[in-house]
Amino acid sequence: MVRTDFRHPDGRRAYLYGSFLEAPQGYRPAPRAAGLYERRWNPLRREWVLVAAARQNRTFMPDQVDCPLCPSAPSHSSEIPAARFDLAVFENRFPAMRPSLAGAEGGEGVAEVVVYTDQHDVSFSSLPLDRLHRLVDVWSDRYSELGSRRDVQYVFIFENSGEEVGVTLHHPHGQIYGYPFIPPVAELELHASRLHRRQGKGCLQCELVADECEAKARMLFVRGGIAAYVPAYARYPFEVHVAPIDHRGALPDLMLGERPSFAEALQAVVRGYDGLFGRTMPYMMAMHQRPTDGRPHPEAHIHVEFYPLLRDAGKLKFLAAGECGAGTFVNDSLPEDRAQTLRRAMSRVEP
Amino acid sequence: MVRTDFRHPDGRRAYLYGSFLEAPQGYRPAPRAAGLYERRWNPLRREWVLVAAARQNRTFMPDQVDCPLCPSAPSHSSEIPAARFDLAVFENRFPAMRPSLAGAEGGEGVAEVVVYTDQHDVSFSSLPLDRLHRLVDVWSDRYSELGSRRDVQYVFIFENSGEEVGVTLHHPHGQIYGYPFIPPVAELELHASRLHRRQGKGCLQCELVADECEAKARMLFVRGGIAAYVPAYARYPFEVHVAPIDHRGALPDLMLGERPSFAEALQAVVRGYDGLFGRTMPYMMAMHQRPTDGRPHPEAHIHVEFYPLLRDAGKLKFLAAGECGAGTFVNDSLPEDRAQTLRRAMSRVEP
Repeated sequence: MVRTDFRHPDGRRAYLYGSFLEAPQGYRPAPRAAGLYERRWNPLRREWVLVAAARQNRTFMPDQVDCPLCPSAPSHSSEIPAARFDLAVFENRFPAMRPSLAGAEGGEGVAEVVVYTDQHDVSFSSLPLDRLHRLVDVWSDRYSELGSRRDVQYVFIFENSGEEVGVTLHHPHGQIYGYPFIPPVAELELHASRLHRRQGKGCLQCELVADECEAKARMLFVRGGIAAYVPAYARYPFEVHVAPIDHRGALPDLMLGERPSFAEALQAVVRGYDGLFGRTMPYMMAMHQRPTDGRPHPEAHIHVEFYPLLRDAGKLKFLAAGECGAGTFVNDSLPEDRAQTLRRAMSRVEP
Repeated sequence: MVRTDFRHPDGRRAYLYGSFLEAPQGYRPAPRAAGLYERRWNPLRREWVLVAAARQNRTFMPDQVDCPLCPSAPSHSSEIPAARFDLAVFENRFPAMRPSLAGAEGGEGVAEVVVYTDQHDVSFSSLPLDRLHRLVDVWSDRYSELGSRRDVQYVFIFENSGEEVGVTLHHPHGQIYGYPFIPPVAELELHASRLHRRQGKGCLQCELVADECEAKARMLFVRGGIAAYVPAYARYPFEVHVAPIDHRGALPDLMLGERPSFAEALQAVVRGYDGLFGRTMPYMMAMHQRPTDGRPHPEAHIHVEFYPLLRDAGKLKFLAAGECGAGTFVNDSLPEDRAQTLRRAMSRVEP
C-alpha cells in the first residue's frame, strides 16, 4: 500500500495511505493549538500524569460540514490534505503530550489520529473487508515508525467509540499515543508475564489463550490463528480479549495469514456488541504490544482488550469509587453467560 | 452516640446511630437477593474481580415513595427498621461480596450502606454540622467493627454521587466495602509509602501534605489539623485530597479536635464543587486508611480522594481507553489554576 507523507504548515505530520485526490487549491489546515504541556509525577500511585492544557479547547461535536476528519473541500480545510482518500493518519492538533515544534527532536511523545475512511457516516463495524485488512497494515506501520522514535517507549493503539466514552467526533477513527514511558497498565501486564516466565512457565498470554481454547465456554472466535474470548476474569460484563494463538509480540510479528483474521476478529466482536441491545455499543478498544524502549521484551504478547460500557439494555457499567478509588471491579454477571449471549449475537450478524 | 443493633429476618445486620422512632407494626424488609458470588483472579493484572450476579437486579431509580433508604411507614417497609432516625447503616441486599448467610463466619467480605439522614431530598453538602460530625463517628465505628472481622482485610469507605457516576438511589448515602484483600489502588499507595520509608524519608503522605501547605498554590482548606488541596499531580481537573496534617493511620487515630475539621473539610470541598458550574457536581469520594489485615502498617496515612467528573460547565471528564487501557490520565488543565477556581467557589459558599 502506498503511503504519501505531508507536513502541515505548523510542523504536524500527516500520512495518506492508499490512493487519494489532491486537496483543493488554497488548502490550509488549522494550526496546532497553543498551550502548556507538563509531565507530572504522582508519587502516591507512582505514575505519570500528562498535563495538556491545550486540549481544553478541543473540537467538540462539530456539524458534519465542519468535520475535521472529512475530506477537504474548497470551502473547508479539514485535517486531511485530500479531496478523497482511503486511510489517513495525522498528528493531533490537541495532543496529549508535548509535541516537537520543529523536526523530530524536542517532543515528548506523540498523539496521532487514525481515520479509517473518508465516509463520515460509517463505523468500524461497517468497514468493508479490504479496508479493514489495510487498517491492520496502517497500524503496523505506525507501530514501527513511532516505535523507532527516541522519545517513544510505548506505542498505544486505541479506539474510543460512542458519546458515553466521551467521543467528540463522530467520523470513524481511532487514535495512537506514543508514550515517552511504559504506561502503568501495560507495565502491570508485562510484569505479570515476566513473573510467569521466571517460574519457568513460558508466555502468560500464550497460556491464557490456550486455556480458553480448551475450555471453550467463553470462546467467541477462532480463525486463522486468532482467538477472541470473554476472559474468565472479565471486569466488564461483555469484556473481550483478542489475541494471536501463537506467540507474537507486536503487529509487525503477525504472520501474513494472521493479519486478516486479526482485523476480522476485531470487527466480529464489535458487530456482536452492536447486535446485543439493538443499539450501537459504546466501547473502548486498547491494544497492548511490545514496548519500544529498546529492550527485547520476550514476555510481550500482543492482544486487544475491549471494554464495552453497556451491561444490559439501557444500563451502563459505570466506573465508580470501587473501581477508581480501590481498583476492584464488581462484575454483576457470569462471564460464561455473557460469552454465550455475545456468541449468539455474533452468529446473527456474521455473513 | 447510642447505637442500636438489628438483625433482619434474612440475617442481614442493620444499625441505627442516635435516636429513632420504632418501625410501624408489620415491618418486613425485603430479603437478600439470591445469586452467585465468585472471586476470580485476573492473572494479567494480578488482581481480584468480584463476580456478584445478584446485583444485576438491584433497585434502579425508585420513586421516593418506594425509596429503600427512607424511614419505614405502615405502607412501606424500607431497609431502615424505624419510622424516623438520625443515621443508619445496613448490609446491602445486593452485596458485591459473598455474604455470610448465618452468623459472622462464612462470608467473604461485606458491603454496607451508610444513610446520612432520614431526609430524602438533601445531600452530603447540606447536612447540618452536628450530623456531619456524627457521620465521622459512624464511619470510625464501622472501620473498627468491620476491621475486626477475620474476613475483612481492608475497610473502604466511599461515596458515589450523581447519575453520571451510576448512582441508582437519590437518598443521601455512602457505602462501605470490607474487602477480603487489600485492593490494588490502596496497595499501590501503601507500596509507594513503604518505599519512601525505606529510603529513610518517613511517611510519604505527611511529606505531601507539608509540601502543599508550604507551596500554598493548590491549598483549599487548612483548619483544625486537616488540609484539603488539589494535588500537583491531579488526574481529574478538580481532584482534591483531604488529609490530617499529622500522621494518622485511620479514623480512630484522629484526635478529638481533628474529627469535626475532617468532616467540615469534606463538606467544604463538595460545597465548592456545587458552586463551580451552577449545578450539582457528580463525584466519587474514596477514603484510604490503614489495612485491617493484622499487620501494623506504619506507612498508612488516612486521606480522602475526590474524583469530580465535570471538567467544565457541561463537559465531563470521561474515563476512556487512555485511562482504562493504558492507565495514564491526561489532565487538560493546570492544577494550580483549578485550585484557584475552586478556592473562589468555596469562599462564596462558606458561611
